[in-house]
Amino acid sequence: MAYDFRLDKLREECGVFGIYDNDNHDIARLTYFGLYALQHRGQESAGIAVNDGGTILYHKDMGLVPEIFNDVVLNHLKGKIAIGHVRYSTTGASLRENAQPMVVKYRGGQIALAHNGNLVNAAEIRNKLEENGAIFQSTNDTEVIANLISRYCLTSSNIEETFANTVKEIKGSYALVILTPDSLVGIRDPFGIRPLCIGKLNNSYVLASESCALDAIGAEFIRDVNPGEIVIVDKDGLRSVNSGSCRESKLCIFEFVYFARPDSVIDGACVHHARVEAGRQLAREHPVDADIVIGAPDGGLNAALGFSRESGIPYGQGLLKNKYIGRTFIQPTQDKREIGVRIKFNAMRSEIEGKRVVMVDDSIVRGTTTRRIVQILKSAGAKEVHMRVSSPPYKYPCYFGIDTATRKQLVASNNSIEEIREMIGADSLGYLSLEGLLKTPRGARCGFCTACFDGGYPVEVPDKEINSCKGGAV
Amino acid sequence: MAYDFRLDKLREECGVFGIYDNDNHDIARLTYFGLYALQHRGQESAGIAVNDGGTILYHKDMGLVPEIFNDVVLNHLKGKIAIGHVRYSTTGASLRENAQPMVVKYRGGQIALAHNGNLVNAAEIRNKLEENGAIFQSTNDTEVIANLISRYCLTSSNIEETFANTVKEIKGSYALVILTPDSLVGIRDPFGIRPLCIGKLNNSYVLASESCALDAIGAEFIRDVNPGEIVIVDKDGLRSVNSGSCRESKLCIFEFVYFARPDSVIDGACVHHARVEAGRQLAREHPVDADIVIGAPDGGLNAALGFSRESGIPYGQGLLKNKYIGRTFIQPTQDKREIGVRIKFNAMRSEIEGKRVVMVDDSIVRGTTTRRIVQILKSAGAKEVHMRVSSPPYKYPCYFGIDTATRKQLVASNNSIEEIREMIGADSLGYLSLEGLLKTPRGARCGFCTACFDGGYPVEVPDKEINSCKGGAV
Amino acid sequence: MAYDFRLDKLREECGVFGIYDNDNHDIARLTYFGLYALQHRGQESAGIAVNDGGTILYHKDMGLVPEIFNDVVLNHLKGKIAIGHVRYSTTGASLRENAQPMVVKYRGGQIALAHNGNLVNAAEIRNKLEENGAIFQSTNDTEVIANLISRYCLTSSNIEETFANTVKEIKGSYALVILTPDSLVGIRDPFGIRPLCIGKLNNSYVLASESCALDAIGAEFIRDVNPGEIVIVDKDGLRSVNSGSCRESKLCIFEFVYFARPDSVIDGACVHHARVEAGRQLAREHPVDADIVIGAPDGGLNAALGFSRESGIPYGQGLLKNKYIGRTFIQPTQDKREIGVRIKFNAMRSEIEGKRVVMVDDSIVRGTTTRRIVQILKSAGAKEVHMRVSSPPYKYPCYFGIDTATRKQLVASNNSIEEIREMIGADSLGYLSLEGLLKTPRGARCGFCTACFDGGYPVEVPDKEINSCKGGAV
Amino acid sequence: MAYDFRLDKLREECGVFGIYDNDNHDIARLTYFGLYALQHRGQESAGIAVNDGGTILYHKDMGLVPEIFNDVVLNHLKGKIAIGHVRYSTTGASLRENAQPMVVKYRGGQIALAHNGNLVNAAEIRNKLEENGAIFQSTNDTEVIANLISRYCLTSSNIEETFANTVKEIKGSYALVILTPDSLVGIRDPFGIRPLCIGKLNNSYVLASESCALDAIGAEFIRDVNPGEIVIVDKDGLRSVNSGSCRESKLCIFEFVYFARPDSVIDGACVHHARVEAGRQLAREHPVDADIVIGAPDGGLNAALGFSRESGIPYGQGLLKNKYIGRTFIQPTQDKREIGVRIKFNAMRSEIEGKRVVMVDDSIVRGTTTRRIVQILKSAGAKEVHMRVSSPPYKYPCYFGIDTATRKQLVASNNSIEEIREMIGADSLGYLSLEGLLKTPRGARCGFCTACFDGGYPVEVPDKEINSCKGGAV
Repeated sequence: MAYDFRLDKLREECGVFGIYDNDNHDIARLTYFGLYALQHRGQESAGIAVNDGGTILYHKDMGLVPEIFNDVVLNHLKGKIAIGHVRYSTTGASLRENAQPMVVKYRGGQIALAHNGNLVNAAEIRNKLEENGAIFQSTNDTEVIANLISRYCLTSSNIEETFANTVKEIKGSYALVILTPDSLVGIRDPFGIRPLCIGKLNNSYVLASESCALDAIGAEFIRDVNPGEIVIVDKDGLRSVNSGSCRESKLCIFEFVYFARPDSVIDGACVHHARVEAGRQLAREHPVDADIVIGAPDGGLNAALGFSRESGIPYGQGLLKNKYIGRTFIQPTQDKREIGVRIKFNAMRSEIEGKRVVMVDDSIVRGTTTRRIVQILKSAGAKEVHMRVSSPPYKYPCYFGIDTATRKQLVASNNSIEEIREMIGADSLGYLSLEGLLKTPRGARCGFCTACFDGGYPVEVPDKEINSCKGGAV
Repeated sequence: MAYDFRLDKLREECGVFGIYDNDNHDIARLTYFGLYALQHRGQESAGIAVNDGGTILYHKDMGLVPEIFNDVVLNHLKGKIAIGHVRYSTTGASLRENAQPMVVKYRGGQIALAHNGNLVNAAEIRNKLEENGAIFQSTNDTEVIANLISRYCLTSSNIEETFANTVKEIKGSYALVILTPDSLVGIRDPFGIRPLCIGKLNNSYVLASESCALDAIGAEFIRDVNPGEIVIVDKDGLRSVNSGSCRESKLCIFEFVYFARPDSVIDGACVHHARVEAGRQLAREHPVDADIVIGAPDGGLNAALGFSRESGIPYGQGLLKNKYIGRTFIQPTQDKREIGVRIKFNAMRSEIEGKRVVMVDDSIVRGTTTRRIVQILKSAGAKEVHMRVSSPPYKYPCYFGIDTATRKQLVASNNSIEEIREMIGADSLGYLSLEGLLKTPRGARCGFCTACFDGGYPVEVPDKEINSCKGGAV
Repeated sequence: MAYDFRLDKLREECGVFGIYDNDNHDIARLTYFGLYALQHRGQESAGIAVNDGGTILYHKDMGLVPEIFNDVVLNHLKGKIAIGHVRYSTTGASLRENAQPMVVKYRGGQIALAHNGNLVNAAEIRNKLEENGAIFQSTNDTEVIANLISRYCLTSSNIEETFANTVKEIKGSYALVILTPDSLVGIRDPFGIRPLCIGKLNNSYVLASESCALDAIGAEFIRDVNPGEIVIVDKDGLRSVNSGSCRESKLCIFEFVYFARPDSVIDGACVHHARVEAGRQLAREHPVDADIVIGAPDGGLNAALGFSRESGIPYGQGLLKNKYIGRTFIQPTQDKREIGVRIKFNAMRSEIEGKRVVMVDDSIVRGTTTRRIVQILKSAGAKEVHMRVSSPPYKYPCYFGIDTATRKQLVASNNSIEEIREMIGADSLGYLSLEGLLKTPRGARCGFCTACFDGGYPVEVPDKEINSCKGGAV
Repeated sequence: MAYDFRLDKLREECGVFGIYDNDNHDIARLTYFGLYALQHRGQESAGIAVNDGGTILYHKDMGLVPEIFNDVVLNHLKGKIAIGHVRYSTTGASLRENAQPMVVKYRGGQIALAHNGNLVNAAEIRNKLEENGAIFQSTNDTEVIANLISRYCLTSSNIEETFANTVKEIKGSYALVILTPDSLVGIRDPFGIRPLCIGKLNNSYVLASESCALDAIGAEFIRDVNPGEIVIVDKDGLRSVNSGSCRESKLCIFEFVYFARPDSVIDGACVHHARVEAGRQLAREHPVDADIVIGAPDGGLNAALGFSRESGIPYGQGLLKNKYIGRTFIQPTQDKREIGVRIKFNAMRSEIEGKRVVMVDDSIVRGTTTRRIVQILKSAGAKEVHMRVSSPPYKYPCYFGIDTATRKQLVASNNSIEEIREMIGADSLGYLSLEGLLKTPRGARCGFCTACFDGGYPVEVPDKEINSCKGGAV
């Protein structure tokens, strides 16, 4: 009976952070603040691991960053190198066993790993590893990667080679930060599907999924990690290792559409600017005669501003989102389900009443919430509601870290635009073209994965393993 | 060492909600949703009391509404009449004993009370009551009111008279909802300083601090409770009792400036509209040559839009506020205090860089956060920062429910506008005039208390009792 | 479906503790340790209040002493005078509002009260107070007492008179400790039904329900508070005030039978010795030819030893009680209810098998658990089970602090001894005579209330008020 | 500063339980009750895993059995096969990662393992496994065993062979229960150092560390698992597999001295009876002229009874142990350390005063608590205190699951008996001889490991691996 708002939004898997300290910083606190800035990338669990001169200390749990850490815990996590992780909230069972960083002991010593992304050949590798005797305690790709590192360590002459070999074997998207006994390692997949950047705070190096985490701790942005690049920070400073696996750049375009924080700069392009541009382009592609442009909070606000700027139609604040709606939301009883959306959103009648409204959102997944918001606007007196979406129809499941349900649940997979318009009850509906979208990340020094729009997956995607460790904690 | 952001914002005391059911609704759930919509009025504690045919069942605790209630608790709270309360978060000790509704037994039976506001003669009444043998277990004004009701009950011929006598004795601001054995009662103070409105859901009556709570449960707005009015809902429907104490209307103007949710309509005026108007008026009073107008999130966003609309300067999104910053925020170590603000706010460089920025906020209390935000904007490349405040200088402490610290802490109490401008590092600073502000609540059928700006308190304010029950729970 | 073991045991209400410090002790910690030693008198809630030079700080919550307090809380509770309280666990709703000490502000300042006992005229006083305008927020007798103190304070010339007047009005059992702005007060009811003793730790005075709490903190036992005596400890030392209400001593005999800790000495008699003596006397009154004497853990162990010593039949350990059974016990599904008792108790087959067993318990309330234990012993091979009870048949409800259910539930109220024997399946059953029992507290300087055995209540007992504040927290 | 009582007692590692259901039992609840009965074997963490027709569901956490499980969780754990585990409480970091059962996926499917004991060659195997690429996520021996099973599965023709090969490789003590996709497996180490027995409940098979867990659920005791035996329960019933590794039986003698619950029967001998016999033998070996025999609660009570029976000196209850002392015990401030012991123990003056006391305890580890108890007895008026220990001096560290600190901390390792006597302040001190002790488990069908007394370890003990995964969760 519970209505899950989250099914109407796409979710990415995780955020990662790392620091190698040369300035006697309080690295656990810096990691904590970095994770705070990356919290939008995952609200299910969080963790920090530090290397305390040989041994790794860590703390991880289910919940938000501020719920998991306190002064006592942070004071305990002393060390020279730290990594951190935030993980997204699944709709099903949230396994505590899946919280990261994962801390393991292997031939090369004790390491901790934090991973953002998704391997498409994880099941295949698991099978191969199991055929060689490996056991798995979680359903995390991270555990697969740790096993590979352990095995390649045996046959490699140094960690550069170990990581390069590992990179050769795993397919899919990943931004990895790894804490080794004496170094901090960052790895980005050969296509650079997931973002990872390098910063510097005084003499210390920082790695983060997004530049906003650098800003949060006052670190200077240095550059993005390149696709297929392995960066190793140790006592000799930072060095780059070419994994030999780099391919043409294919950054996930959805980082710009929805995932990343608007104040981040990824692969050279400013996220907020890209979103405003997407709104502008949308106005060019799907102009409409209207009185006001509003954004669906929070995903559509930036693009709505762009639409307004381009079209000259005034920008307005037409919808209020209850910011206290959290993860635990008691549902109204069955006959009052519409209360659910009304508690989350309310219309600003004074902005809406009697007007022709353009509502901009970043995407439409199932369409359910969109339909209800259109109803709310009409109830508040909107004469017309023109829906504009700042990305193309989302038609193909993502295998690289976005948690879309099955293709069956993707409304654009199974319906024409006109059918969707009718379903959501809008007076018109316009999606941004892929060509238009690709122009928006101004200054981007990368190519893009657009598979969710056109099905052009950069790597072959097998039928995804459902769940290799089938059971689960209660 | 902890930096308390909250000291830079004004806080109101509480939100109240009540329902008298004639339709077999699940009243605990409706109250829960109503409180959810009123959560912005108080995040310290929340509670619901229901009348279960003679006895009162209740649940209250420290925390947010979704943290306190779950299905088991709500299912237990069955009844025909319910009231609810949310309470604001103090900076000091949060007494569990102060959570509301307060449930008491007296001569007239068992009642529950929930109160928003502040009595200025509470200490005086407490003294008088103590001289007659009363004891007090909390520092709540609600306990004072309950004692008065109990005493007037002894000498009154009906509850109308009991409540009217009580209203005559208490001075200050209050919006009260009371659950009696067979009725739901709402009382608004003689000046109507705190808001309270009446709604209807099918055949059931609802009372709420703001109309947004009516919207949340799908109830129809009927009217505001009048200053000094007592409304009683029982099996015979709703009737109005004139307390004989009503005075000229003096609604707290800060409800429009900052407290109320923008989608609420209070005493006839739309909050969001008033804020946009305040921005427009501000642009008229303090025009400036600039490239972009931004609002300080979240308080200044509406007025920034108005400023943009009036001035023609484009509206922009120049500041991002981390929405995961909650009540428990671990501070950076001392030498890194500025991290605190950076984690909460970040500038959108692409919107700001090289531009002359107008930043609009609703008010300046201490000025500390404002100064840091100006710094953030300048660091992000703003050529100029012009601060505009959509209310007059906040100079006088409030005795009617706003938690300002002492006058010493109010920057406008002790500094000229030019001094404040210099302190916050802005290139120019303009406050909305009181005359200008009073024009903004379009259609308001009320007068306003503007004491915080001009010192004109509607009732005599004695030196406030600091804390009648001095100790406190740890 | 839940089987409540506790219904088979009698429960007393509370334990109290107080200290007036003249040695710069850490009084919160001393009170904590004192309450730890009194934990057997109540496991529902606990609290400590300290007078911090004018204001009272306190902490109280539901749970066991070690669950409620930690170093942070105790470090916060600094002061010169402290009182503490433990409260028993009811079978029904446990109201957090009922946790003690109760802290109130009245004409005389701020005081804290902790109470063990039960007033028989509480309802009557409540009614009278309500008729004068008082309100009640809990169902505690303590709130009644606080109201009386507040009122008598108005007409008395000093606190001695205030307390003496209060004592005159309240009827029933009570051991009270009160923290006033500058003194620690202890009051014992006119019959001395509940115990209260005085100790000294260096130059500091201590009050406690039982002497075991003095031992725990290394304090020296001074004397018991006399029936009807008021002791006041302040800067001038300890002084005794005769309330003018003292009557002939009527200490609850059940303190010796079951409630008190065996290492305590109450009104001159050692509890453990009295129980051993009860066992001896039982052996004289109900001798039996048997092979082994065992006690039902833990209540019957002392008396079993006495029975063995007197009879010469060897003492044995025939039953093991699972010490991890706590307050939250998940029940077996319905068809396996007998598992419940088996998890709590198991027989030591090697002690029992083939033997004629004398099992001694302190009392039989409903008889249910007794019946099952007899079954367990027989299943373990006992040839005969002779039940011996170290107190007379429990026939009359207690109105002075023991939580017996209704008379209907008291098996001895409604059945002959032979009927009970048959119900519990024992081969013989013998109860200690009242005359025999009264001889057991060797050296006791007090008389005894034996109303539960003979119905001779020391004060008139009206139909007890069920619940003056009918509702309750969820 | 915290004084850890637990350092004065020996602690065993764990308890295990398993059930293969053929009767439609609620197996999660039965496992819960079984673990309740085994709680004395471990209070740090507990867990239950069930096989739900292919997938394994589990729940485990830190804490006591009743704290971890509730009806909701148990109702969720539906299945045909279940295993459970309780783990002891360490003095240092308690790793949540170490909680059991451990659930892993390997080539043979998904299995869950629960282990009691300690491998002496775990470090060696870990090294070998790491040399083949294995990674380790915990410091549990169980993870080592799971890896071996996974690897032997690859080369074995059936699970019998897989487990037999595993048994051949691991050295040390272990009682293992394993949940495979279609069977319940129990394995006991080749020396049978840790106990494991088989029971039957209707048509369902049960495995448990001790027979008291069978009693708790009403199951019938069938037999003990033999040293080196592998029992497999599946749809064809129970079959026994000889691992080919069985050796002469060497049950840990301390199971009889202290660990096991007195109502258990292990390898044919009754624990309670063995303890009583040890007391008898102690009286024969170290007679003394005294007035009363008391036991140190709870470990010395059984033997004290035996000493009394043999010597004819009356048995008494001279010490009371506060049963509410749990895992979280706030220490007195430094100058009051002796309060710590006084809060835990108090003497019964009426039993002790003026008497020559024999105090019996099961063992002396560091001697600290013993010294304080002797002091308490003397303070309570004991004329003489004669200490008697129902086992030989504990001189050699255990490598098979008993958590003794280093040899340096074992008082008997470094001191003569006379020196110990002087340290603890007793008037005389007598230890039971090893010969005497070995006679006490009447009817035992096993030999015993007595290494802690004589250093005769059944397998070679290398320098114990300190901590293979050195870091740890905070």
